[in-house]
Amino acid sequence: AASPLTCPHHLLPLSLGLFQGALLLFFALFVTYDELSARVEDADLVANRLYGIFPLFQDIQVMLAVGLGLLLTFLPRYGLSALTHNFLLLNFSTQWALVLQGLLQHFHHGQVHLDLRSLLTAEFAAVTVLISVGAVLGRISPCQQLVVATCEVPVYLASEWAIVTRLGVLDVGGTITIHVFSCYFGLGVSKALFGAARQPLHPKETPTPSSDLLSLVGTLILWVFWPSFVAVLCQPGDAQHRAILNTLLAMSASAVTTVVASSLLERDGKLSPGHLQNGSLAGGVAIGVVADMAVPPVAALALGSLSAVACVLGFRFLTPLLARKLALQDQCGIHNLHGLPGVLGAAASAVAILLASQDTSRSHFSQVFPTGGNASETSGGQWGDRGAGGQALCQAAGLAVALGGSLLAGLLTGTALRLPCLAPPPQRLCFDDSLYFKIQDDARSPAPGSIAEEGTLALKERV
Amino acid sequence: AASPLTCPHHLLPLSLGLFQGALLLFFALFVTYDELSARVEDADLVANRLYGIFPLFQDIQVMLAVGLGLLLTFLPRYGLSALTHNFLLLNFSTQWALVLQGLLQHFHHGQVHLDLRSLLTAEFAAVTVLISVGAVLGRISPCQQLVVATCEVPVYLASEWAIVTRLGVLDVGGTITIHVFSCYFGLGVSKALFGAARQPLHPKETPTPSSDLLSLVGTLILWVFWPSFVAVLCQPGDAQHRAILNTLLAMSASAVTTVVASSLLERDGKLSPGHLQNGSLAGGVAIGVVADMAVPPVAALALGSLSAVACVLGFRFLTPLLARKLALQDQCGIHNLHGLPGVLGAAASAVAILLASQDTSRSHFSQVFPTGGNASETSGGQWGDRGAGGQALCQAAGLAVALGGSLLAGLLTGTALRLPCLAPPPQRLCFDDSLYFKIQDDARSPAPGSIAEEGTLALKERV
Amino acid sequence: AASPLTCPHHLLPLSLGLFQGALLLFFALFVTYDELSARVEDADLVANRLYGIFPLFQDIQVMLAVGLGLLLTFLPRYGLSALTHNFLLLNFSTQWALVLQGLLQHFHHGQVHLDLRSLLTAEFAAVTVLISVGAVLGRISPCQQLVVATCEVPVYLASEWAIVTRLGVLDVGGTITIHVFSCYFGLGVSKALFGAARQPLHPKETPTPSSDLLSLVGTLILWVFWPSFVAVLCQPGDAQHRAILNTLLAMSASAVTTVVASSLLERDGKLSPGHLQNGSLAGGVAIGVVADMAVPPVAALALGSLSAVACVLGFRFLTPLLARKLALQDQCGIHNLHGLPGVLGAAASAVAILLASQDTSRSHFSQVFPTGGNASETSGGQWGDRGAGGQALCQAAGLAVALGGSLLAGLLTGTALRLPCLAPPPQRLCFDDSLYFKIQDDARSPAPGSIAEEGTLALKERV
Repeated sequence: AASPLTCPHHLLPLSLGLFQGALLLFFALFVTYDELSARVEDADLVANRLYGIFPLFQDIQVMLAVGLGLLLTFLPRYGLSALTHNFLLLNFSTQWALVLQGLLQHFHHGQVHLDLRSLLTAEFAAVTVLISVGAVLGRISPCQQLVVATCEVPVYLASEWAIVTRLGVLDVGGTITIHVFSCYFGLGVSKALFGAARQPLHPKETPTPSSDLLSLVGTLILWVFWPSFVAVLCQPGDAQHRAILNTLLAMSASAVTTVVASSLLERDGKLSPGHLQNGSLAGGVAIGVVADMAVPPVAALALGSLSAVACVLGFRFLTPLLARKLALQDQCGIHNLHGLPGVLGAAASAVAILLASQDTSRSHFSQVFPTGGNASETSGGQWGDRGAGGQALCQAAGLAVALGGSLLAGLLTGTALRLPCLAPPPQRLCFDDSLYFKIQDDARSPAPGSIAEEGTLALKERV
Repeated sequence: AASPLTCPHHLLPLSLGLFQGALLLFFALFVTYDELSARVEDADLVANRLYGIFPLFQDIQVMLAVGLGLLLTFLPRYGLSALTHNFLLLNFSTQWALVLQGLLQHFHHGQVHLDLRSLLTAEFAAVTVLISVGAVLGRISPCQQLVVATCEVPVYLASEWAIVTRLGVLDVGGTITIHVFSCYFGLGVSKALFGAARQPLHPKETPTPSSDLLSLVGTLILWVFWPSFVAVLCQPGDAQHRAILNTLLAMSASAVTTVVASSLLERDGKLSPGHLQNGSLAGGVAIGVVADMAVPPVAALALGSLSAVACVLGFRFLTPLLARKLALQDQCGIHNLHGLPGVLGAAASAVAILLASQDTSRSHFSQVFPTGGNASETSGGQWGDRGAGGQALCQAAGLAVALGGSLLAGLLTGTALRLPCLAPPPQRLCFDDSLYFKIQDDARSPAPGSIAEEGTLALKERV
Repeated sequence: AASPLTCPHHLLPLSLGLFQGALLLFFALFVTYDELSARVEDADLVANRLYGIFPLFQDIQVMLAVGLGLLLTFLPRYGLSALTHNFLLLNFSTQWALVLQGLLQHFHHGQVHLDLRSLLTAEFAAVTVLISVGAVLGRISPCQQLVVATCEVPVYLASEWAIVTRLGVLDVGGTITIHVFSCYFGLGVSKALFGAARQPLHPKETPTPSSDLLSLVGTLILWVFWPSFVAVLCQPGDAQHRAILNTLLAMSASAVTTVVASSLLERDGKLSPGHLQNGSLAGGVAIGVVADMAVPPVAALALGSLSAVACVLGFRFLTPLLARKLALQDQCGIHNLHGLPGVLGAAASAVAILLASQDTSRSHFSQVFPTGGNASETSGGQWGDRGAGGQALCQAAGLAVALGGSLLAGLLTGTALRLPCLAPPPQRLCFDDSLYFKIQDDARSPAPGSIAEEGTLALKERV
C-alpha cells in the first residue's frame, strides 16, 4: 500500500490543504479590512455605495457558481463533477488572485486593505480559469485544473496590467482582458496537452435531453445577469446606465439571431441545443468592450447579432475543422463563445472610437468615453496625446497582447499538465462522475433518467 | 427538393431574420439613448435612481426567462422546447414592442429615447404573449407563436392605452392590463385554432415526478420575485413599500390556501402538483391592481386566499367543464392562474375604492391612491370629477375592455393561425422536443441516472 | 366511509384552513401597515432605505424557498414532497410568527404596525423550523411538521428574547439564536419521536447522481446568497460591509476545505456529494456571530476552514456514532451543518471579544462591536459594566440557553408527535412522493423518474 504522501489520490487534498495554510499565513501577516468610513465621512454615503455595488456583486456570484456551473452539466454523466470542479476552481482561483494582488499591494504600500471591490477583481481573475478549462472539460483531473489556475491567474494579472494600465485599452466589460485572454489560454493548454493525437468521440460525450435542459437553464441564468457583469465596474451614472442598456440589447439580438442561424444550418430547420446554450451569450462577450462608450443603440444590436452568427458558424464549421486539421480539442466550444465574439468586440471598439472622433457635432467628448481617465480636452481631444487613431491602434494592440500572450502561456501550461503525477483520467473514465465521486453504481437504484422505457421494451422484445 | 424559400423549415429563420434586419434599420434611423444626466443634474441622484430600479428589473428578467420557462417544463418530453420557445418569444416580443412604442414616440416627438424604463414596459408587453401561448403549449409551432406575438403586442399596447390612459384605471401590477388581457387573448386563440374539435389526451401530456419537480422550481422562482414585478413601476416611498408588503402577504396566503384546497379536492387528501404550481401564484395575479392602494393588510391576505381557492377550483372543475362543453383547450390552465384571479382582483379594486371613500376619517386621501395622477382635492376628492363611484365603475369598464377586446383579438389571431404554411405540428409529434431539436434519440445513449448501460448489460448477460 | 371531520386525510387541510381563518381575523382586528413617511420626512430617504433592505430580503427569500428546497431534494423519490413541505412550512411558520410577534406588540402598544423588517424577523423564525425538520426529513407527515412549527416558533421567540434582549448576546447572523437553537430542537424532536428504535437504512434513502446534482444546485444558491442573510440586519455602513466580507471569506474557505477533508476521508480520494452539499455552507453558519465584529480577515478564513472540517468529520464519524450509540436519527445531518459550526462560532465570538479588549491600541471601541447598543464609553469600555470578560461569558451563557432550551423543547415536541392522529407515514412509504402527491405511477409513462425499478423487477420476474 502506498503511503498517504505518495498516493496519487492524496495529491489534490494535500496540495489544496497546503495552499489553505499558506493563505491563512498570508492573511494573518498582511491583510486587514478597508474601513470605508475612514475615507468617506457621511455614513449614508458609505451605505449607498455598498448598496450600489453589492446587488451587482451577488448577480455575478450567481452567474459564476450557479449559471456557469449548470451550463457545464451538458455532459450527462459528468454533471456532479462539472458543477463541483467549477465551484472549487472559482474559490481556489479567487483566493490565489487575492494573494497575488495582496503581494503586489504589500510591496507598494506595506499593508493590504481588502474591500468588496478587491474581491470582485480577484473573482474576475477566477473567471478566466473557469472559461479556459472549458476547452478540456471532462478530460483533465482536478489536480491538473489546479495547475491551470495556478499558472493562469498570475499571467492574467500581468496581462490585464499591460493591457489596461500600460496600453490604456478601454475594456470595461473584460471582452479583451477576460474573454479573449482565457479562450486562447485554454486552447493553448488543450493543444499542448493532447498534442497531435486526435481525441475520438467518447460515448459519454453526447448530451441527453435532460442534461441539455439543465445546461440551458445555466445559459438563461448567465443571460439574465450578464448586464451586471459588464456594468459593475462602470462609472456610476450615465455610463453605467448605457452599459446596462447596450448589454441588454446585444443579448436580446444574440438570442433571436442564434435561433435564425442554428435553424438555417441544421437539417430540417431544427435547432441545436449547443448553439442555443452558447450563441445566446455571444453578444454579452462582444459588447463588453464598447458597453459604456456612447455608441448608438443600433450598434449594440448589430454587434449582438454578428457575434451570435459567428458563434453558431464556429460551432458548425470551425470547431470540426480545427479538430480535423490541427487536432485541436475544444470540448465546450470556448473558441466560439469567447474567442470569436471577443475578437469581434475588440474590432468594434476600434471602429467605434474612429467613428466617434469624426462625429464633430458632439461637444461633450469627455462624456462619450468616460473611462478614458487620461483625457485632456486641449491636446488632441479625449484620447490625450494619442488621438482617436492612436486609441484605436491601442485597442488592436491590446487584442494582440491578450491573444498572443495567453496562447503562449497556455501552451507552456499545457506542457506542464503532461506530468504523470497529476493523475490524468484514463480515457475510459473521461466524462464520468464515478471517477471523482462516491456515488451509487447500483443498477437497481430508483433513477430519474430515460432508460427504463428502453430497458423494458428491450426486455419485452427479447424474453 | 424544395427551394430554401418555399421549404416550410425555413419560414421561421427567414421571417425572424427579416425582422432582425428591420429592427436594425429602425434603430439606426430613430433610436438613441436617453441621457439621464441631461435632465437630472446631480450624478449621485442619477446613480441612485438606477440602483433603485435595476435590481427589480433583474428580478423580473429572472422571472420571465428562468422562472416562467421552468414552470412550462412540466411536459416531460417538451422541456427544451418550452424553455427555448419561451426565451425566443420573450426576446422577439420585447423587440417588437420596442419598435411599436418607438414608432408612436417618433410620430409625436421625432426622436426615440431609450432608457431602462422603456425596456421594462416593452418587456411587460412581452409578458402577455408568454402567458397567452400557455393555452396552446406544445400544440403550436414556433412560427405560429411568432404570429401570436406579432398580433398580440399591438393589441396590448392599444388596450393598455385605452384602459390606463383613457379610462384612468388604476392597475399598478398589471392585473387587468396584463393578466386578464393575456388570458382571454390566449383562450380566444385556442378556441379559434382548434374550433369544435376536442383534443384527445395525448400520451406525452402527462407530467412525470421529475418534470413536475422542475416546474415547481419555476413556480418558486416566480413566487419569490413577484413583489418586484408588482412594485417596479410604483411611486418610490410608501406606495412602493405597501405594494411589496401587500404582494408578500397575498402570495403567502395563496401558498397555504392552495395546499388546503388541493388536499380537500383530491382523493385521499393528496396534493396535485399542478395545483401547487399555479395556485401558489394566484395571489400575485390578483393583488396587482390593489397593491399600492392603502388597503389594510387583511385585504391582501383575503385576496390571496380567495384567488388560490378560485384557481384550484378552476383546475378541478372549470377547465374540464370548458373542455367538455365548449371544446376549449387550455393546456397550462391560464384561465385558472390569470383569468379568475385577475377578475377577482379587478372586483376587489372596485370594492377597495368604494370602501376607502366612505372612510371619512382619513385626511390624506391623495396618499391613499398615489397613482391617481388626475386627482384634484377640491372637486370631488381624489378621483377628480368622477368621485369614488365613478372610479369604481372605471375599474369595471377597464376589466370589460380588457376581457372583450382580448377575446375578440384572440379569436381573430387564432383564425390566422390556421394557415397551413405556419407548419402546425402533427398530432403525433405534439409535446415532443424531437420535432424542434436535433437531439439524440438513440436508446443506448448514456443517460443520467446511469442505469441504461448497466441495465442493458445485465439484460445481455441474462437472456 | 369516514366523515370528513374524522378522516385522517383531512386533518391537514382542516387545521391549516382553520389557521388561515384565525390569521385573517387577527389581521383584520389589529394589524396595519407602517407608514414610513410618518416618521421620515424625506421621500428620497424612505425610498433609499427600502432599496437598501429589499434586495437583501429577496436574496433571503430565494435562499429559503429555492435554495433550501433544492438542497433537500437529495432523496431521489421525495423531491416533490421535500420542496413542497419546505415551502408550506416557510409560509405557515412566517404567518404564525407574525401572529405571535403581533400579539406581543398589541399587548404593549395596542396597534400592530407591519413593515418589511417585521416580515423579515418573522421569516427568521421560520428558518428555525425549516432547519429542525431536516433531522426527520421524509419520516414525518406534513401534520407532524405543522405541530413542530407550532411549538418551535414561540419557543424560538422566547429564546431569542432571552438571549439577545436579556443577556445582550451579540449574534447578528443568528449563529446561536437560529442555527444552534434549531439544530438541537430538531435532534430533540427526532430522539423523542423515534425513541430507542434504530431506524434501518431505507432503500429509498440513497441519493442518485441526478438527485445529488439538484441538491448541489441548492447548496450553490445558498452559498451565493448567504452574505445577504448574515448582513441584512447589520448597521448600514462599515459594519455591514465587514459582515459581507467576513461571510464571503469564510464561505470561500469552507468550500475549499470541504474538498480537502472529504477527499482525505473517503476511499480513493473521491468526494462525497453529501459532504460538499453541507460542508461548503458550514462557514456561513459559524461566521454569523462574529461577522460584524472587527475581527481580522484571517479569522474569517480560519473559522470557515475549521467549521468545514468539523462538518465533514461529523458526517464521517459523529453521525454514525450517534446513530449507533444513542439511536439518534439525523437525516440531513443538521448536527454537522448547524450544530457543530454553530458551537464553533459561539466559541470564536467569545475569543474575539477577549482578544479585542486586549488590543489597547484601538481607540474607536464603539465601532468595533457596533451592535452593542448598551455600550457606555465611560464605565468599563464598550461592554458597559460587564467588561470584555463578562461579555465573553454572556456569549457562552447564550449558547447554553439556546442549546439547553431547544433540546428540552424539542424533546417535548417530539413526544407530542407520537400522537397517532398526526398520520405518521408507514415505514414502507417513507421517502416516497406517492404518499403525498397525485402522481403517475404508470410504468409506461415516458420517463425521467421512477421506472427503473419496475423495469428491473419485471426483469427478475421474467428471466
